[in-house]
Formats: sequence, C-alpha cells, structure tokens
Amino acid sequence: MICGGNMSKCIRRRRVLTFTENNHKHMQPFRTFTLFLFIICQFSAVAQTKLLWQELYPGIWKAAAGKPEKISLLSTAGAKPQLQALAKLPKTTFPLDKAAIDLKVIDHKIYLRFPLDEEEQLFGLGLNFQTVNQRGRIMELHVDHYGGEDNGRTHAPVPFYVSSKGYGVLIDAARYITVYAGTGVRTNAAHPPVVYDRNTDKQWDAQPYSDAVEILVPAEGANIYIFAGPTPMQVVQRYNLMNGGGYLPPKWGLGFTQRVPTLYSQDDILKEATSFEAHNFPLDFIGVEPGWHSSSYPCTFEWDKTRFPDPKGFLEALAKKGLSANLWFNPYVSPKASLYPKIKPLSGSHTVWNGIVSDFTLPQTRALFKDHFMKTHLEIGVGGYKVDEVDGYDFWVWPDVATFPSGTSAEQMRQVYGNMVQNMTGSWFKAINKRTYGLVRASNAGSSNFPYVIYNDYYSHKDFITALVNSSFIGVLWTPEVRASKSAEEWVRRMQSVCFSPMAMLNAWADGTKPWSFPEVEQAVNEVASLRMQLLPYLYSTFAQYHFEGKPPFRAMNLVEGFGYKPPTVAGQLDATANPYAMSVKKDIKDQYMMGDFILVAPMFAGETSREVYLPQGKWYDFYTGELVGENQKINITPALDKIPLFVKDGGIIPMIPTRRQAPKVGDILPLEVRHYGSAAGSFQLYDDDGISFDYEKGAHSFTRLAVAKNSVGALQGELPTLPTGKPFGYAKEIKWVFMTKTK
Amino acid sequence: MICGGNMSKCIRRRRVLTFTENNHKHMQPFRTFTLFLFIICQFSAVAQTKLLWQELYPGIWKAAAGKPEKISLLSTAGAKPQLQALAKLPKTTFPLDKAAIDLKVIDHKIYLRFPLDEEEQLFGLGLNFQTVNQRGRIMELHVDHYGGEDNGRTHAPVPFYVSSKGYGVLIDAARYITVYAGTGVRTNAAHPPVVYDRNTDKQWDAQPYSDAVEILVPAEGANIYIFAGPTPMQVVQRYNLMNGGGYLPPKWGLGFTQRVPTLYSQDDILKEATSFEAHNFPLDFIGVEPGWHSSSYPCTFEWDKTRFPDPKGFLEALAKKGLSANLWFNPYVSPKASLYPKIKPLSGSHTVWNGIVSDFTLPQTRALFKDHFMKTHLEIGVGGYKVDEVDGYDFWVWPDVATFPSGTSAEQMRQVYGNMVQNMTGSWFKAINKRTYGLVRASNAGSSNFPYVIYNDYYSHKDFITALVNSSFIGVLWTPEVRASKSAEEWVRRMQSVCFSPMAMLNAWADGTKPWSFPEVEQAVNEVASLRMQLLPYLYSTFAQYHFEGKPPFRAMNLVEGFGYKPPTVAGQLDATANPYAMSVKKDIKDQYMMGDFILVAPMFAGETSREVYLPQGKWYDFYTGELVGENQKINITPALDKIPLFVKDGGIIPMIPTRRQAPKVGDILPLEVRHYGSAAGSFQLYDDDGISFDYEKGAHSFTRLAVAKNSVGALQGELPTLPTGKPFGYAKEIKWVFMTKTK
Repeated sequence: MICGGNMSKCIRRRRVLTFTENNHKHMQPFRTFTLFLFIICQFSAVAQTKLLWQELYPGIWKAAAGKPEKISLLSTAGAKPQLQALAKLPKTTFPLDKAAIDLKVIDHKIYLRFPLDEEEQLFGLGLNFQTVNQRGRIMELHVDHYGGEDNGRTHAPVPFYVSSKGYGVLIDAARYITVYAGTGVRTNAAHPPVVYDRNTDKQWDAQPYSDAVEILVPAEGANIYIFAGPTPMQVVQRYNLMNGGGYLPPKWGLGFTQRVPTLYSQDDILKEATSFEAHNFPLDFIGVEPGWHSSSYPCTFEWDKTRFPDPKGFLEALAKKGLSANLWFNPYVSPKASLYPKIKPLSGSHTVWNGIVSDFTLPQTRALFKDHFMKTHLEIGVGGYKVDEVDGYDFWVWPDVATFPSGTSAEQMRQVYGNMVQNMTGSWFKAINKRTYGLVRASNAGSSNFPYVIYNDYYSHKDFITALVNSSFIGVLWTPEVRASKSAEEWVRRMQSVCFSPMAMLNAWADGTKPWSFPEVEQAVNEVASLRMQLLPYLYSTFAQYHFEGKPPFRAMNLVEGFGYKPPTVAGQLDATANPYAMSVKKDIKDQYMMGDFILVAPMFAGETSREVYLPQGKWYDFYTGELVGENQKINITPALDKIPLFVKDGGIIPMIPTRRQAPKVGDILPLEVRHYGSAAGSFQLYDDDGISFDYEKGAHSFTRLAVAKNSVGALQGELPTLPTGKPFGYAKEIKWVFMTKTK
Repeated sequence: MICGGNMSKCIRRRRVLTFTENNHKHMQPFRTFTLFLFIICQFSAVAQTKLLWQELYPGIWKAAAGKPEKISLLSTAGAKPQLQALAKLPKTTFPLDKAAIDLKVIDHKIYLRFPLDEEEQLFGLGLNFQTVNQRGRIMELHVDHYGGEDNGRTHAPVPFYVSSKGYGVLIDAARYITVYAGTGVRTNAAHPPVVYDRNTDKQWDAQPYSDAVEILVPAEGANIYIFAGPTPMQVVQRYNLMNGGGYLPPKWGLGFTQRVPTLYSQDDILKEATSFEAHNFPLDFIGVEPGWHSSSYPCTFEWDKTRFPDPKGFLEALAKKGLSANLWFNPYVSPKASLYPKIKPLSGSHTVWNGIVSDFTLPQTRALFKDHFMKTHLEIGVGGYKVDEVDGYDFWVWPDVATFPSGTSAEQMRQVYGNMVQNMTGSWFKAINKRTYGLVRASNAGSSNFPYVIYNDYYSHKDFITALVNSSFIGVLWTPEVRASKSAEEWVRRMQSVCFSPMAMLNAWADGTKPWSFPEVEQAVNEVASLRMQLLPYLYSTFAQYHFEGKPPFRAMNLVEGFGYKPPTVAGQLDATANPYAMSVKKDIKDQYMMGDFILVAPMFAGETSREVYLPQGKWYDFYTGELVGENQKINITPALDKIPLFVKDGGIIPMIPTRRQAPKVGDILPLEVRHYGSAAGSFQLYDDDGISFDYEKGAHSFTRLAVAKNSVGALQGELPTLPTGKPFGYAKEIKWVFMTKTK
C-alpha cells in the first residue's frame, strides 16, 4: 500500500512521484499512473463498513455505524419502549433498499447516504418554523435558540426524518450532524440530473436534482434507526412508541395557564388568581417567573424571602383555588445557592451568566439536584417547571471549548442538556406518582415521553403555527404562546390558536398582559378558552392516543391519510441581488393542522380576513354549524373575528363537557355531550383516568367506545356506549347525542 | 489510571463505582470519591501540550499545536515572505504573556485560549459586513456566501485577528474554526465578571465580561502564528509581508471597469467600448460574463463560436482601444468541456451544477488547467479572470460528505478552493511576466499577494463600505461593486464609493446598466470617475506601499495612529420578543476609511443628506477646498450630491495627473500636479514602474520623494524632488505644486 490511511502522506508521495506543473506537455504516462494512485488512495483513505441491520422492535431496525458513543440522544433521554403498542402496528419489511444505503468512516467521521425517489418529500429534521417539506434543504442540527431561519439551529434539532413514502431515519448521535436532504449530486448518482446550459436553457436550475440524503456525523460512530410505516403516521407512531409513547399530561395541564410578571410576589399571584375568577376566565395553573428565586440569573433555586415569605402557605392557598404552580428556572447554579459548593466539582469549565454548569451526565449531580428540588419544591406542592435557556444561544451558553468532569464534550452536552433536565425533573414527579406538565426550551430525539412543551422568544404567529405542524414529526410538543399584541385583532387571533395547541398559555413575564387586556375582544377570547375547556374529553383522549398509540395530538396535514397536496415548485425570478441564481421556491401547506383524528384547525392571522384551507379526501364540515364545506379540495373561507376556523371530518365524533374554569378534578362526574358530524358512521375512543397520577399505567384507566351507526331505516343514531373497559370513568352514563349535520 | 484516555470508559466505570440516584441521602463518602475520580478523569482526557514559540521572521512567532495538517490555508496560498521588508519593521519582543496562552488537544481537536485585557478591541476574523470590533462575537469561520450576519460564514473567513493592543493571532488550519472572541467565561477566569442578580440589579448583563479569546480547531493540529506590532498597523504589515506583501496591480487595473450583460457577443462588447468613448467615460478593462463559454454553467472554458467567432481578433480589437478583457468563470467543469475527460479522474465525488469539481491540490490537475487556459486565453491576450462561486453557498457547492482523490476532505477543500484558484491563475500570468487584476468570490489567509479583489451578490451600500473597512485587517481587497439603483441619488452615491475602492467597477451582468444610466447624475458620476483617474499616481503609490511595506491601500480607521474612538456600549432595552435579555449594543465606526496615508473617505448613502465623521488626531482639511474641518473630533457634514466627502491630513501630499480615460501606458510621460494640505511639512513616496510587468521585482521601478517643507521665512514650499531612485519614471520633471490650504 502506497499511502496508508493518512491522506497527507499520499499527497506528499504523489508530489515526489509525479511530474511537476511545468512539465505539463507530456502528460499521458503520469495520467495513467495518477489514476492508479487515485484508486489506491480511495481504498486506503476510506474505511468501508457495512451496516448490519437488526430488527429491534416490530418495524424498527437498528445498525451501528462506526463505534457509537456512550453519550447519545437516546441514552440521555432514557425512554422505555412501549412494546405492546409497537406489536399492534402492522408487520412490515425493511422499507428501503439496503444496498442503496451507503456508509463510510473517514477521519473520525461518519458519512451516510440514503436513497431518495423523485416524488419523495421529507419531513422533520428538527423543530422548523418556516418550512415543512425539508427536501432540498441543508440542516446543521445544533441545539440553539431559533434564529429566524430553518437551518438546523433550533430548540429541538432532532436528527430524524419521515419520508412521504412511509419510512423514517434516525441518527442517534449527540453531535452537530449535517443533513443534506436531497441537495448533493454525486458524479456516480443512480439518477443524475439533466445537464443544462444556463446561457441558453430556461430549464437550468440552481439546485439540480439530487437522488439522496447525505449525512455527516462528526463522531467515531452512531446508531442508525430505520422506521417502517407503511404510512408516514405509522412511522411517527413507531418513533414515538420506541421513545415511550407521548407523555399523558395531568388533566389540569390541558386547562389554561397564565405566567405572571417576573417580580410578582406570592400576594400578587394570589390576587392574579382572584382576578381570573372575577373575569370568569379559565385557569388551571400559574407560571411563576424568575422572581421566586432569591437570586436569578444565575439561579439559587431557593425561595426569595421578601417576595415569597411562605412558599408552602402560598402553594396551599393556590391549591385551595384549584390551582397548581409552575416554577421557572434555568439550571445554571448561582454562587449564592446552597447547591453551589456541592455542585462545583461536578460542573463544567465555563459559566453561564456566572452560574456553574452542572454535569448532569453524572448520577451524583442529578442526585444533588433531586435532593434539593424534592425538599424545597415538590414536597410542598410545586406542580411543575419551566426550564429556560437550556438551548443556548451561543453568546451566553458554554462554548464548545468547555470541558466537563465526566469527559462529555461541550458539543455533546449542548445536544443533550435539554433532554437530561427533562428526564431528571420528570423522574422526580414520577417518583411521587404525580403527573406534571411544564415548559422547556431545548429537546432532542427520544423526548416524546417527557412532560414538557417547547416554547421560545420568537414571536411570528404564522411561524408559530408552522412549528406546531412540524412538532408532530419529531415527537415533541410546541406552544404558540401569547405574550403581547399590537392590536385586539392580533390578540384574539393568537389566543385562538394557542387554545388549539398543547398548552393554552399567556406568558406575561415581561408585558404584564391578561387575557382581557383588549376589552373589545374579551368575550371572544373567553369563548375560545371556554371552547377548549368544553373539548377536554376530546383533547385528553387525543393525548391518550399519543401515549398509547404514539399518534401526536397536533398533527401536520402530511400525516393525514388522503391529504393529496403536492408542493408545486415555482420558478424563481432572476434578480442580481435578491435571487442571482433564480432559485425556485417550493410551496408548503404550513398554516393548518389536525387536533386529533377529527378536527382540522385553520387559524386566522391579524390583517387577514380570508384564507385558503386544503381539505383532505372525504367530506369536511364546519365545526360550529355542521354544514358541509367540501372534500379533497382547496376552499377559501372568510370567518368572523370571534371564531377560529375548525372543520370536522365526515363521521367525526367529538365528546364535550359543559364549559368550566378548571379541568375536572378526581372524582368529578360530568355530563357528556357527544357531537357527530356529516353523514358517515364513526366512532371515538373516549379515554379517562384520575387525571393526576401514574396509576393509569397500572391499569387504572378506562376506554369507552362512542359510536354512531345507521339504524335499520338508514338514520344515524348514537349507540349506547360499550361499558367502559375500566375505571375511573368521570362522566354521567346518560349521553346527549347531537347530530350537527342536518340530513335532508 | 482508572479511565484511560477514553472518557466513555470513565463514565461507565463511575456508574459502577458510585451510588445510584436513589441513594442520595448519604452522599458524603461518594462525594469525596467523585472528586478523586473527577481529577483523574481531567488528567486522562486532556492531552496537555505546550506551545513552543519560534521567531520565524522578525516580530512573527510560530508554534505547532498538535500535529498540523499538510493542507492548510498558508500551504495552499504558497506565498513567499518579503524578508527584507519584514526586517525593516521595528524589533520587538513576544507581544503576549506566553503563560496565559493555553492549549489542549482533546479527541482530535485543538482547544486554544489567548488572554484579553479589559479595553482591548479585536479586529479581523474574516470579511465582515456589519461589525468592526469583533470582541464579544462568536465566529464559525467557514467559506461561504455572506448571508447577512457576521457569524463567520463569509467569502474570506480568515482566522486572523488584530488586537487594538498591537498584536495579531493567526490559526493556519483549513478547517471550520470556531472563535469565541471574548464570550466564554471560565470558572477559573483570571478576571472573572461580577455576579449580579437579574431580578434586582440593573447592572446585570446578558454577556458577562470575558477575559479570553477561545478557539476550537476541529483538526489534529494547526500552526499558530503570533504577530507583534507595536501598532495594529504594524501587525497588519507583518501579516501581509509574511504573505508576500500586497499584489501590485497593473496600472490599468486601477482604471474603470465595466462588466457587460451575460450574453453580450464580441460585437456587442466592442460597441460598448465605443459608447464609453462617446460618453468620454473612463474605461480600462471590460468584464466578459458567462456568455463567452460555449456552455455555462457548468463551464467549458471554451469560446462560444456564435457569440465569439474570433476571440483573438476580438481581444486585439479591444487592445487597439487600450482595453483589456477579463473573463468570468467558475471552475466546475462541464461534461461538454474538452478538459472534462482529463479532469474526471482528478475530481471529487460530487458535482456543482453538474460540473465536476477539480482537485486542485493535485499538481497534475493544475497542469491540465494551465495548459488549456494558457493556450486558449492568455496566449491570445486575455488580461484576467473573475472567479465566481468558489465560496459556496451550501445549496450548490459540494457537500461536506464529498471526497476527493487526493484525500483532502471536503471541509478543507471548501476553505482553500478560493486560495488555490487564485494561486493557480495568478501563477499563469506571472509565468508570462504580465500583471493581472481580477475578481474572486472566496479567499482566506495568505492571500495578500493574489491579484484579486473580492465581490459578492449582497448589495447593502453601507455594509459594502464596512466590508471595505474590514478587508484591511485580513490581507484581502474588496470592491463595493455597483449594479443597479433605485434612484439617481443612490446611483451617484454608490458610484462615488466604488471609485474610492480597490476596483472601480460597474457590474451590469444582469441589469445592463451603464455609468450614464441616470442622466441627471451623469456628470457627477463622470466627475468622480475622472477624479479617480487624476489620483492614479497617489493610488498606484498606495498600492506599492501595500506591496513593499504591507500597508493595506484602503484602511480601517482603527489602523490609523491617533484615532481615539472607543466604542461606547449602549444598554439594551428589554423586549420580550426582540430583546428578551436586554442585550447591549456596541457602536462601531464602520462607514469611513482611509485611502492611503492621507485621504479620509466618508461616503454618503442614499436618503441621507448629512453624516458624522470621526477625525483622528491632527488637523484635517477638506479635499476639495483645502479648508480646515477639525481635529480629533466628531464633525457633522452636509455635502452636496455631486461630491464624495474626502478629507486630507495636515501635511498631506497628493500627486495627481490631468484627467484621462485610461491609466498611463508604458512610456507615457505625464505632467504632475502635487497638492499640499494644511500647515505642516510632509512628504510622499511617489512610486512608478512600467505598470504591466513584474520587472519591478528585479529593480525596474522608481521611488521619488515629494516633500513640502518650510523655507527660511516659515512659508511652505515644495522641494525639488529628489531624483527618482530608479526608473521608469513616467512623469515630467517639472512639478506643479498646489497649496490647497490658504495661510493667513
């Protein structure tokens, strides 16, 4: 072998052996020799390795590329797969051509390639805010605050993609992975693009056709997972179920939440609660912002004696009002914190806002946190956390040159910090058999079963909805939180969409807003919050579906069977500055989504009085009137200001309860109204349990089949529900059936 | 040793040895043990190495960190240091505290740290467009098209910074280097920031004080260079002289250039030349855009027979008009090119716009290109090139998973491709003893002596000027090219500043504009272009200074002695969306610069009728009137539309010639008018040579000292010039002295 594994040697050797540049006249002999060298070098530089695929769970295959690292996304998430649920999904075969998957290991890096078909669309690759189909994009997956561009730097840069062809790929490496999602074109491509002359051919395209996804993992190795479908939804289900299934929030987690201004005292907060009562506005839990810490940032995780002289009494007073408290923190430990001296030797080389950075890969670090948080928070009734600033961004989080006592690199730590804090805090609540539901600003692969919803400071209403759409591909939840608005119109439009999201939240930490801040729309805001409360049986059952079946509660249209939209490519206009390569643009459907199986949500945005809605196959009906609106088509709607446009699938069944300010408590028995839409028969699995504990995991839950069928003369009628298959069942046995669509 | 060099082992071992999380009640014993383990792991994970500094050239030290790679920025630039000029700079000692420079080598990566003082400002770190002082920023240095943010992705991401304290640091690695320019804060920082409580302290800052520059080089090693000053200008001089000194353009390169629409034929271009004559507008060379190729993109590098039936005749016809032709190309080889079959085995795994990517690290690749380009271009009179798209961007350039026959990684190739094409093409012209001057879209460290000016598609006039300011720190040239404008005002303002830049260019490839496109300002545009022509003796001598002394021709104010501006930090306003951490902002002076030693340029921008100018110490005078405008102060000016504000330093001497359409040709003898400004004595080294060849390197050049001194009665008078110290000297012996400032 001439040049060993080290290419620099190869170059040196060639310099000696070949002619110099000045001898270019007689090149034929060395050209042949060069080709020979070239082949030798190719072989010696690249460690060609095979991927050995093993079916780990039904429809999920795993293979090791190189030498996978101990610290990975899934290892820090620590989820337990839902084996029984996985077994219920259809049996299938390996969904890709194994021979078309390519692996090279070069210079401590993993090079991967997966095939792409011509019509294929790719979804996922992180929590994106502006695009849905990622084909044609390049993602440098890096946990970070979202910076306004879908480039891989985001709060949950999950290295997982779902193909419209019905398979998924996950790279389990806690590294800054680069994904070329159908951009690179190889000289030996199986399906090469046509060569055009930009001088004269109008078909010339700045992005020639690419037939592959290529991935660079800057690590010695990574585990690769392939998920079969056959549908994209089933790919997502397998992904979520492998990661423990979705977290089932406590019922109160699905009620309304208000986060108070940062320096509110315990008295201020109790007054805030009273004012919600006075306005008859739903409220289930209150977010307590940084002011509860004796110092923050960096944080002490200790109650401030001035603003919170009696934390236990404060939490009890809230509990009496049926309210739970959610405490803000970021994990960077203040020198003033009692935890500081204990954590110091277990922390990294760099500080964040002068707080030390705990090495949570070490069990003793987690034990110290647990000890403190259990004693001073959970044991006196704290209901959850908002975990801030575990995402970045670079200007204050630890740099990539930071080191940690466990030897975990700064890069790895960055990719898994959110996962680790979610895992750790979630386990505390689990240990006391109490469900929680909170907020987090960084997540990654494997996080489906964490009790957290992602949020950020970015505030584009439209992009917030696109994030909600995209969250469904990657096993995370997202809230389009409301903070402030420039107008009453914007206020009500934002309030409407946040009430149709995983967490109905007003975050007033900086702005001091209240739901009724715009009196002219107070009633409309109250109505949509009340509608969410009425829909709790539907919503809670939808979250149960997330847990037991892996189906995300809020879903991209691309996960809906019969959604036939294919993104058209619009030719780019040449502009020497704005578009010098006349790049074409792909159009996504990114402003509508499904809440559960039946409700299509098409939010309105300030400044717009009409919008387009793309309806999948099958008939669709207006939620409010029951009227038919269309099927498998684009419709244009001009909804009133006080209504968020909602559409229900033919045969859709929506269980509802009378409006109320708080989610049902243990032992409540509520009257059910079950709506039916359209002309088809249908059924719904109504889920129930105690709403607060993990007893449901041990069987303490019920599923009740609500069904509408045609009777002997062809008329629709609600069937007597099959008796609940378990208990608790918090509803009256008498059901009021409402047939929303009038038959002729 | 418990955990070897592999940290994952260390983690596993600790998991076995320590208590589990549930046993957190009795932690004291294992805490001590943990500390022990922690120390062991720290030592075993990190290869602590020393940097051994060697004085390579006077005031320039080099040390190897880890094992430097063969392919580096400087190795591909291949510059020869200007040893004699380096020896003339002041003797000095190592400018930093060696003990405060830290190096670690961990997992095939280099971790570096350099100290920072409190008042220190940092300049350089790539061709930035919006900021000048880089302290407080994070740069991921990556050759790319500029994307609108100073984050390290730019056309020349040079890993070199100049400190206001008068030293410089260069990391010579062809890798995506991350520089934390005073952002990271270490737990053991020598100068730690004060800890504030954001809840209550107004001094709380989102970016706590950092006392270090930290750098991550993702490579086995890199050579590090330290440059002494003592002034920032001398740091830059040493940097440029080590890299061969600045390239001395041919005289015609400093005249005006027009780039024609992309599909112009040879007849169209000759007509264009005639229309410049008709408008009496300066023109020295013409840029021929992609249409000259028989196919492009990808390129054939062969003349299109329809549009250019007689290339030699065309070039001769241009030459008769005194014009040179500059050919556009990008280096991606079309399958239709005659070069294709020869280059194919010497090219990378991926295509760019269907063109193969030549591996220019291989000498035989370069030889093939030279053979083709010499025969079909240089030998028939082509004067230079515009090298496009060697920067990126990612969506069409080769991905980081590409491989190359030499074994050079895609990442390395990306960082040096611009350097290599500049080096290669520059050497062709050198081989025929003909100077060239062209355009390039990617560069890097070591490129001072390349005959290229950087440009891009971005088009913010203000940011273009900031790029011009920043180019002076990193040994590159930049042109704020003019393409189109929304108004006559914008047109004349852009034309004014491009005429006070390294290349006075109108690039009409897409827009078809002409200098007289806005008739209402045609005269003003003609005047500023003519002024540039009049200033050629000054400008050419300034470029000679770049070559012989390493002083950049266009300079940031921060390189001027006596520029006392210190950037104030403006407190940030809290805004939950736009500025949730109330980040403060630093104000740079980024819209004014020096052309040579004496002329301060303060361009105007469309929509603005007045502006501020910061004058360094010493008196400053209006270029046009000779009147005093101030000293060491901020002034406000309201210039007329037809003038670009120019100010001359006290004692400034400006040699000028009568206005002309083209730069002087060999043998021309021109009358000199030498202007003097202010009341101080002064001198200027007037440089001359044949203007076209490299004979000046062998002594065929002249320096003539033009000086003004006070005579016996205290009046200023021009001294008879010392006879030129060489020849050629293309000026009449009789000099017209003009004292612009009237003395009382």
